[in-house]
Amino acid sequence: MVSYEDIVNLCVRRSLFYPASEIYADAPAGFYDFGPYGATIRRKIAELWRKEMVQKEDMLEIDGATTMPETVYHSSGHLKHFNDPMTQCKKCNTLHRADQLLTALTKKEFKEAMSDTQLTTALRDAKAKCPKCRGELMDVRRFNMLVPASVGAAGKTVCYMRPETCQSIFCGWDRLTKTMRIKLPKGVAQVGKSFRNEISPRQTLLRQVEFNQMEIEVFFDPKQIDTIEGWDDVKGYGLRIQRANEDKVTTIPAEKLVKDKIVSGKLIAYYLVRTQQLYEKYGFPFEKLRFRELDEEERAFYAKEGWDFEVQTAVGWLELIANNYRTDYDIKGHAHGSKKDMFITRDDGSKFIPHVWEISMGHDRIFYSILDNSYRKDKKRVWLTLPPLLAPLQIGIFPLLSNKPDLVKNAKEIHKDLKGCFETFYDDSGSIGKRYARADEIGIPFCMTIDFDSLEKKDVTIRDRDSTAQKRVPIKDLRDVLFKLLTGKVKVEKL
Amino acid sequence: MVSYEDIVNLCVRRSLFYPASEIYADAPAGFYDFGPYGATIRRKIAELWRKEMVQKEDMLEIDGATTMPETVYHSSGHLKHFNDPMTQCKKCNTLHRADQLLTALTKKEFKEAMSDTQLTTALRDAKAKCPKCRGELMDVRRFNMLVPASVGAAGKTVCYMRPETCQSIFCGWDRLTKTMRIKLPKGVAQVGKSFRNEISPRQTLLRQVEFNQMEIEVFFDPKQIDTIEGWDDVKGYGLRIQRANEDKVTTIPAEKLVKDKIVSGKLIAYYLVRTQQLYEKYGFPFEKLRFRELDEEERAFYAKEGWDFEVQTAVGWLELIANNYRTDYDIKGHAHGSKKDMFITRDDGSKFIPHVWEISMGHDRIFYSILDNSYRKDKKRVWLTLPPLLAPLQIGIFPLLSNKPDLVKNAKEIHKDLKGCFETFYDDSGSIGKRYARADEIGIPFCMTIDFDSLEKKDVTIRDRDSTAQKRVPIKDLRDVLFKLLTGKVKVEKL
Repeated sequence: MVSYEDIVNLCVRRSLFYPASEIYADAPAGFYDFGPYGATIRRKIAELWRKEMVQKEDMLEIDGATTMPETVYHSSGHLKHFNDPMTQCKKCNTLHRADQLLTALTKKEFKEAMSDTQLTTALRDAKAKCPKCRGELMDVRRFNMLVPASVGAAGKTVCYMRPETCQSIFCGWDRLTKTMRIKLPKGVAQVGKSFRNEISPRQTLLRQVEFNQMEIEVFFDPKQIDTIEGWDDVKGYGLRIQRANEDKVTTIPAEKLVKDKIVSGKLIAYYLVRTQQLYEKYGFPFEKLRFRELDEEERAFYAKEGWDFEVQTAVGWLELIANNYRTDYDIKGHAHGSKKDMFITRDDGSKFIPHVWEISMGHDRIFYSILDNSYRKDKKRVWLTLPPLLAPLQIGIFPLLSNKPDLVKNAKEIHKDLKGCFETFYDDSGSIGKRYARADEIGIPFCMTIDFDSLEKKDVTIRDRDSTAQKRVPIKDLRDVLFKLLTGKVKVEKL
Repeated sequence: MVSYEDIVNLCVRRSLFYPASEIYADAPAGFYDFGPYGATIRRKIAELWRKEMVQKEDMLEIDGATTMPETVYHSSGHLKHFNDPMTQCKKCNTLHRADQLLTALTKKEFKEAMSDTQLTTALRDAKAKCPKCRGELMDVRRFNMLVPASVGAAGKTVCYMRPETCQSIFCGWDRLTKTMRIKLPKGVAQVGKSFRNEISPRQTLLRQVEFNQMEIEVFFDPKQIDTIEGWDDVKGYGLRIQRANEDKVTTIPAEKLVKDKIVSGKLIAYYLVRTQQLYEKYGFPFEKLRFRELDEEERAFYAKEGWDFEVQTAVGWLELIANNYRTDYDIKGHAHGSKKDMFITRDDGSKFIPHVWEISMGHDRIFYSILDNSYRKDKKRVWLTLPPLLAPLQIGIFPLLSNKPDLVKNAKEIHKDLKGCFETFYDDSGSIGKRYARADEIGIPFCMTIDFDSLEKKDVTIRDRDSTAQKRVPIKDLRDVLFKLLTGKVKVEKL
């Protein structure tokens, strides 16, 4: 069994990610830096999302500032609603999330949506003490999770770092509609940083203060929720669905979801399919995926319908995407707050505020779960079965012995020749076994060795990361063979 | 003549960038969002930098958190040194940069490095008043430009948003040396956000509070400053140099810079060449580029040598890159502040703190200057001569008339066929002239029209953005021809 610790240990050992500012003892929890391999894998995750969702679906991708003025958060509701229930120790002053403390203590589920009074009563009933010093706990109160930032001369302007990238999308919507000749439905997408002042950041990338999101907001006319181009291509697709009132996951075709009114319309079923398809391309097996329907209590107060997209990991089912039917809540709120007219006029002259279907992905959580899904170990080695599209590098080139000038020269020539076409790296340090082990650990799909026979026969030995199968391949055929291997058209065993 | 206003007007009209949170009257100055075309161009600028600098030079690219604790800035010197001289109006309380106010008032150059007393005296001598209300001005004092952010439970931890991405690189250096088997010299690179609390943000992207940087820190052994792989390939390359004591720019080969001790060593000359070569790939003509040597007064106090890389734009010579020989200042400071041993041991057993050559690029300034460099207008049209690698989209596909089903069907089929290979878009709205005009304005290199002859002859008409030359090309040859056009192997005129 692979554990969360296995994966985090590998990541820290090979610098895929590590605590930010970690050389300083006072570095706050909940911030991580991505090292070279990790940053590359994370970037490739975004590139595949861009290709599959943004480009294929003709969406608009923007890149907005992360700092926004207070008025934005009045309109979005964050100043009022974006808070966690908190209790403080009277003795050591440590703050704790009341709901999490109760869940840990009683092994029952407590939700942040419960009222402060309910949570305080539950704390008293459970005779809860401070887990740190056993001190008395104060009554539960709310703690706003926005991260404040002082901007401007003498820091006089109160701003907050955005808690979700979509606020940039909503605030830019008015201009985009006026300049981009938009026809609804239209998705607007963004990859970028968001910030949430978590009381207890934990589980490394899974609950950070500063984190990356890949968000899509699809704007549409609510009267046209059953009109979407490409429906015929997806309507038979089987979605992994877990209803709010059920324990099990069943596979339901998109068109049945619509027919049985399990979703609000074809447009929503369409994007659920496109989302699940993306995760299949990320390498997740079908049975590890599910859309979990949120009941009214779990949904944000403005959401008419919500599906958490989750994948099975070493830490259980992990929420990666919040899929929310946000109705006209956002545009209506910003239109009201900014006093702008954001109505759209239909051909028949009637007016409406566009509705929003949101596909809000946690970029760092996806990163973690892709590693979790691809981590393998046996008695001999550890390897990541990353799809070649997501691997930090594609091909390792190793001369068998680093003290033989002929081998080194030949290997460097091959490296130089392949570098323009593939993401190659050269490694001549340590035994071949150690070089394979290092490459396997970061998921390099194929490595090749150059030995003494190679000089004579003008060939190399290609090794497959997953099967460890090896085959000799003529140097003249290398480009062609590597291309076929990387695109999955052939296996090393079949060469 | 092209003006700064021409460029900004185009950008705002087509949403390449626009003020962040602009629908709100209280949105602070100095924040911009990048719209779809702008975000794409900016991303492609980073991709070319990654290919030419990071990948070809075997650098390590990381992606760090933007929020860092106070101790980081003690060690880096920002708490003490990162401030601007400021004067405040006694009547309306507005803050002004003292040096800029004096320069505007007296048309002489005043530098922020002058002491507060010197600047106060100069203000009194010039009888300066508040430019806003003619009120009395206070004495000059320093204003720290770090943007504070409160983090953690009840916002108790004082953090600042990083003012330069390199602080993440320096704070991660210790871990990278222990886990990445680094051989010096080694570049560590990063693209990301930085924040500076400018008193007077101005000129849109040129002086923002939140902005993007592409930074490279090359770590090296100071004893090996004359050892760099690839020197023979660059030593004859002509660099555009303006010495600190000279007005004119002269072209000097890299090896002469070293021989005449104009730079501290071959390693530095090497990276100056690689930097200039990148900007030639960005499409700048040789004569618009220069490295301007900084004299001691202009250099940061820790810098042993400094070259501002500048390009000629509508607003004059614009600094795009700070090239700084930072010596051991950074690693020494963080080793001291964090009490970590960051010495590196040479083969002979001697120890040293690595020195740093910094190539700090302003991503948004590069974005502006690439638009500035490619903006063209004549009596008939405006167009951007963006290199195809940087264009937001590559190919437009237009049916001549949008109300002819045959033409539309044919055009959509071609679009679908080419979409997998090229960045294409389909446009059937408005006259062909208007469609060309819209495409030209955002720098689409090639557009094609499908007319009635196309149906019969199975061909299309390809048009070149810059020359407006048009040629008919058989549909079966399209992929091949477009590939050659986009890679510059052939011109439309020569088809």
